[in-house]
Amino acid sequence: MQHRFSTHIQEKFSFLLQQKVILAISGGVDSVVLAHLLAQNNVEVALAHCNFRLRGKESKADEEFVEKLADELNFPVYVQHFDTQKFAEEHSLSIQMAARDLRYAWFDELCNQLGYSYILTAHHANDSWETFLINFTRGTGFSGLTGIPENNDRTYRPLLPFSREEIVSYAQDNNIEWREDSSNQSNKYLRNKIRNEIYPLLKEENSNLMNSFLKTQEHLQQSEALLEDYITILFSKIVTETQFGYHLSITELKKTPNTKAVIYQLLKDFGFTEWEDVYQLIEAQSGKRVYSKTHQLVKDRDILILQEISESSSKTLEINYLEDIDFNLGKLKQNKVSQMKEFDKNVAYFPLELLKFPLQLRKWKSGDYFYPFGMKGKKKISDYLINEKIPVTEKENIWVLCNENDIIWIVNHRTNEKYRIKPTQTILKFTLTT
Amino acid sequence: MQHRFSTHIQEKFSFLLQQKVILAISGGVDSVVLAHLLAQNNVEVALAHCNFRLRGKESKADEEFVEKLADELNFPVYVQHFDTQKFAEEHSLSIQMAARDLRYAWFDELCNQLGYSYILTAHHANDSWETFLINFTRGTGFSGLTGIPENNDRTYRPLLPFSREEIVSYAQDNNIEWREDSSNQSNKYLRNKIRNEIYPLLKEENSNLMNSFLKTQEHLQQSEALLEDYITILFSKIVTETQFGYHLSITELKKTPNTKAVIYQLLKDFGFTEWEDVYQLIEAQSGKRVYSKTHQLVKDRDILILQEISESSSKTLEINYLEDIDFNLGKLKQNKVSQMKEFDKNVAYFPLELLKFPLQLRKWKSGDYFYPFGMKGKKKISDYLINEKIPVTEKENIWVLCNENDIIWIVNHRTNEKYRIKPTQTILKFTLTT
Repeated sequence: MQHRFSTHIQEKFSFLLQQKVILAISGGVDSVVLAHLLAQNNVEVALAHCNFRLRGKESKADEEFVEKLADELNFPVYVQHFDTQKFAEEHSLSIQMAARDLRYAWFDELCNQLGYSYILTAHHANDSWETFLINFTRGTGFSGLTGIPENNDRTYRPLLPFSREEIVSYAQDNNIEWREDSSNQSNKYLRNKIRNEIYPLLKEENSNLMNSFLKTQEHLQQSEALLEDYITILFSKIVTETQFGYHLSITELKKTPNTKAVIYQLLKDFGFTEWEDVYQLIEAQSGKRVYSKTHQLVKDRDILILQEISESSSKTLEINYLEDIDFNLGKLKQNKVSQMKEFDKNVAYFPLELLKFPLQLRKWKSGDYFYPFGMKGKKKISDYLINEKIPVTEKENIWVLCNENDIIWIVNHRTNEKYRIKPTQTILKFTLTT
Repeated sequence: MQHRFSTHIQEKFSFLLQQKVILAISGGVDSVVLAHLLAQNNVEVALAHCNFRLRGKESKADEEFVEKLADELNFPVYVQHFDTQKFAEEHSLSIQMAARDLRYAWFDELCNQLGYSYILTAHHANDSWETFLINFTRGTGFSGLTGIPENNDRTYRPLLPFSREEIVSYAQDNNIEWREDSSNQSNKYLRNKIRNEIYPLLKEENSNLMNSFLKTQEHLQQSEALLEDYITILFSKIVTETQFGYHLSITELKKTPNTKAVIYQLLKDFGFTEWEDVYQLIEAQSGKRVYSKTHQLVKDRDILILQEISESSSKTLEINYLEDIDFNLGKLKQNKVSQMKEFDKNVAYFPLELLKFPLQLRKWKSGDYFYPFGMKGKKKISDYLINEKIPVTEKENIWVLCNENDIIWIVNHRTNEKYRIKPTQTILKFTLTT
């Protein structure tokens, strides 16, 4: 009778049977068993082995073991050496994270270069169980408790429903050899401590620990899927995407029975940490804002506006004569014209003879002033924006076009009285298109 | 400066200050600290101490300690003795569950008799953390991971945001004495094992373990609240309550992106265990049904009908020739066979020529009789079941297969002597599969 590992692969991973796949192989029992299973099922596999050079001779012996196995199973094999220590230091990563990043980057490269479709890893139920407890120990959200996914992108994990014990039994029953990683014995890493100390304690209490866990995971994954469906529905009701960022309708937010929880779900990926401050924006005065490292959330009457804190906010762009320029409001074009037509906010006309190129385009700043077209005298831009009732958030994204020390246009709003066209002057027309 | 325990009580439990409340007190550090805090905040408290008589002299000393404390704090005190062992045996409960049931029943009684409004318990963050891991170990759904609630019914838990360490420090700093429960040292119970062995291991990895956990809990509780909101919305779209049970619209179910997860959420409280069968009803033929101990779910064109079994217990199912039928004992199949093989309780053979279709399948009722195979004469089914020592609970779920007025099979037990096969007769075989 066929072993249930094979049945599982044939039933749930039949798409692999016609594809070229890469198997990430360490030489440990999990990946070696998976290699054998794939060979039995005639999957076209290449073995990919990473040598992180963290364990000296042992690493070398693992590499040789994998090469021998490839030979035996008649699979091509790729081996890559990494200087994990150096990469970790350069990128301020833990050794484990560095190894992980290096691994997946290389697998991707292999796939792309050699025309492989999928990457397989031999993660199993115990790995997922350990991940749950690691996340639980460090503190996590819902998604940190839903385990290792069976699939993401082109990576698949066919052994995920099986326990380490089952995999070891399979290897023993089939006289399959593997390499033990001596570092698994050390409890330096939380994962090893959970595996070597906590797992045996809890296993005494529930001999079916992995089956119970798999059911728990299924429940949580189902709940997570439903929650995502709900968030999608809420998003479409509450959020509008605009040129100036996302707008969250406070009226719609307040219709939900758990407003705080909804705000959290909608904004959790934008790096905010001061959640109480975020929640209080709902009742705050217009203009109040909360910052994360990358974003700001601004209250503006019935709206919460989410915007990226633009890196380019202090940038000044230089504009040469008749040169188009792209910036975050759109594209600014120049034309020489013989007369003024099309009067609109997105259009401005200047006497060419007064302009000294390059002009400058930058965000307005406090202290800026200009001579509003059609008005007498100069005005602070901050006062002008208040008078014009420009919403707080839009204020953040007001650009000015400058000619030497003069602000000649508050882009998309008002030109400078001093640059009014006189008869006989050559006219340069600026048009902002979005 | 006021301690943050007091601030927490004043801010979040101010409603207690004008009420008479019962404090469940063991004499352990948690409940003793809470007693002192309540005294400081002038809450009108009665102490309620349960003596479960499980630890002999130690139990007696705890009781005396609580009485002395009551005297010191000037609180009335109620003490109740329980025969936990006996109650546990009588109700087939674990000692821990028995103690819990006895405790809460008595607190409720005290509240009702003496006009107290609330029950307080001194559960803290570590208790909740342990509960999480207990449920995780045994296998659980989402709600098993959201920790001990701060409140249910009239029970409140003011110390829930604080760790055991903080509570012990408070007691030490304020020279508060308490009793150590020697049974906490034993690792006989999973909770103690988690507390004494696993907690120290994980605490080494995250010195802020409880704070991380409280944040995790908050995330999970928020997610759970949202999920409940969504289920409420789905319920109103999908489910109609009728005189004959709940109707679930299959059309509406299919509109949801995760239909299985929705079905599970809507039906999870009705005792079903064979979820794959439940999910398959969506595409099954009308008339197919799945049973739990208490309910049945029947496919009827575009509807899944959920009914309590008791309501349908008097139903008679009709069976056509060679038609399989699902009912709460399993699936009953028919085959025409040429000879009898496989003699087992779940198999019955009848001469086809004697059967007049449709046959009837129904629960036995008082007054029913039949001719037991291998015996002479007729027998009341009630007597037969007594003679065969069928347990009471199973008796309620005994089905009989009827051919016109004859009971031809007590399903899964005994056929009718009058339907014994004779040579040359064509044989119809019935098989019950579960």
